[in-house]
Amino acid sequence: MGTTQLETVPEPKYWHLKTVLSEALDSEFTVGEILPNERDLAARFGVARATLRQALEQLELEGRLQRRRGVGTTVAPPRVGVAVAPARHTWPGAAGDDWQPVDAVESDTVPAAVARLLETAAGDRVHIVRRSRVTQGRPLAAELLYVPAAVVPGCQETGVLNGPARAHAVLQELQSLELEGQDRTVELGSARAEDAKQLDRLPGAPVLVVTTRYVSGGRTTAVAVSTYRADTCRLTFGESDAVALLAG
Amino acid sequence: MGTTQLETVPEPKYWHLKTVLSEALDSEFTVGEILPNERDLAARFGVARATLRQALEQLELEGRLQRRRGVGTTVAPPRVGVAVAPARHTWPGAAGDDWQPVDAVESDTVPAAVARLLETAAGDRVHIVRRSRVTQGRPLAAELLYVPAAVVPGCQETGVLNGPARAHAVLQELQSLELEGQDRTVELGSARAEDAKQLDRLPGAPVLVVTTRYVSGGRTTAVAVSTYRADTCRLTFGESDAVALLAG
Repeated sequence: MGTTQLETVPEPKYWHLKTVLSEALDSEFTVGEILPNERDLAARFGVARATLRQALEQLELEGRLQRRRGVGTTVAPPRVGVAVAPARHTWPGAAGDDWQPVDAVESDTVPAAVARLLETAAGDRVHIVRRSRVTQGRPLAAELLYVPAAVVPGCQETGVLNGPARAHAVLQELQSLELEGQDRTVELGSARAEDAKQLDRLPGAPVLVVTTRYVSGGRTTAVAVSTYRADTCRLTFGESDAVALLAG
Repeated sequence: MGTTQLETVPEPKYWHLKTVLSEALDSEFTVGEILPNERDLAARFGVARATLRQALEQLELEGRLQRRRGVGTTVAPPRVGVAVAPARHTWPGAAGDDWQPVDAVESDTVPAAVARLLETAAGDRVHIVRRSRVTQGRPLAAELLYVPAAVVPGCQETGVLNGPARAHAVLQELQSLELEGQDRTVELGSARAEDAKQLDRLPGAPVLVVTTRYVSGGRTTAVAVSTYRADTCRLTFGESDAVALLAG
């Protein structure tokens, strides 16, 4: 798997067009402005419609354009910086948390990757807390937080609660435990149908998936899988007071 | 921009196929195995070739499949966990750094976003150090580190050096400064032609772009733009000794 083969592949045509279009977006268009239709654009840049479409898709992937049904293609606002790692380790739902609890269910089915992190066995009951993160009315991220029922035994009675109240009950018991540490992974994913709805995107849209592991009593006690819109979000990891001062 | 419109959009056909294919990959195929050709696969699952191709593209985006010219489509190994944020703040090139210096140039042209972070003016000279990160012979990431010439005045003489030696000289002078802090952002991008070559991918392939800001003397003294292959990498942010112990 050397690079020899790739070196002989010329830069694709749409890629050059993308660069030219990107410069035009900077100099001629303002945020929110609707682009001319594909036929006019293809004519202006002297390319085939298929090439134009590839370039537009690329610019959408890079967060420069938004394509909306019934509206057309508009110039996207800059990506929103979203703080992912808090300066102090805190449980989800602690003071200052930017997430809103939506609801919670109890289930014995969790994704294999989550079960591995939590070291749960088949059939173990797990609370699944759904949360969402919204900025200025726009959905940024959706989250599923997995907490084994054995970790929060006081939540046996939450079955009578519904919606945010039930989510809140699970988070509250979690917060009574001592949090020893947390770590995160970030990877590229595509929005599952349910997340897509919550994020106002179509299924399959690229998302940044942040998996957070919460450690307490020497083991992983909770796992959060957070799905951020890749088109509108830039995840920020602040790690020092010096940088926080600069950013201020 | 409510969700009303999306709720009426049914899950696309290729998406269902993707789920079915993903299960087949788990149960019937092993890592590295070559998939049957598109015609046979389309026939087996009773779908049009176009639908099959969309599902395969999606699985490639999610890192489940690799498509290579002249080889075909193979089952990808699990993504590699790549540590991004070191436990202690260190300059690039400090002991234990996983990056290899490639070369360095001096330039007065830097991307606008980088110039904003460094607060450099047009025409300011900046050292651009190129580094790469490789695991088991496979390229994982490419990096451009921007250091204003004014920050490392001793490097005026590095013009006589070439390749890794020149990169090393810039890093070494940087390391003599006191590092006060660093922060990072992660966002989705697409590989520029030059990065693509270094990463053994085609231009436009999805990448995770990590921008690191190094703070010294109360200002941003260096900015690294690291481009990770999104198909093979999972970025890890470890933040506590407790978690490091667990991970061990």
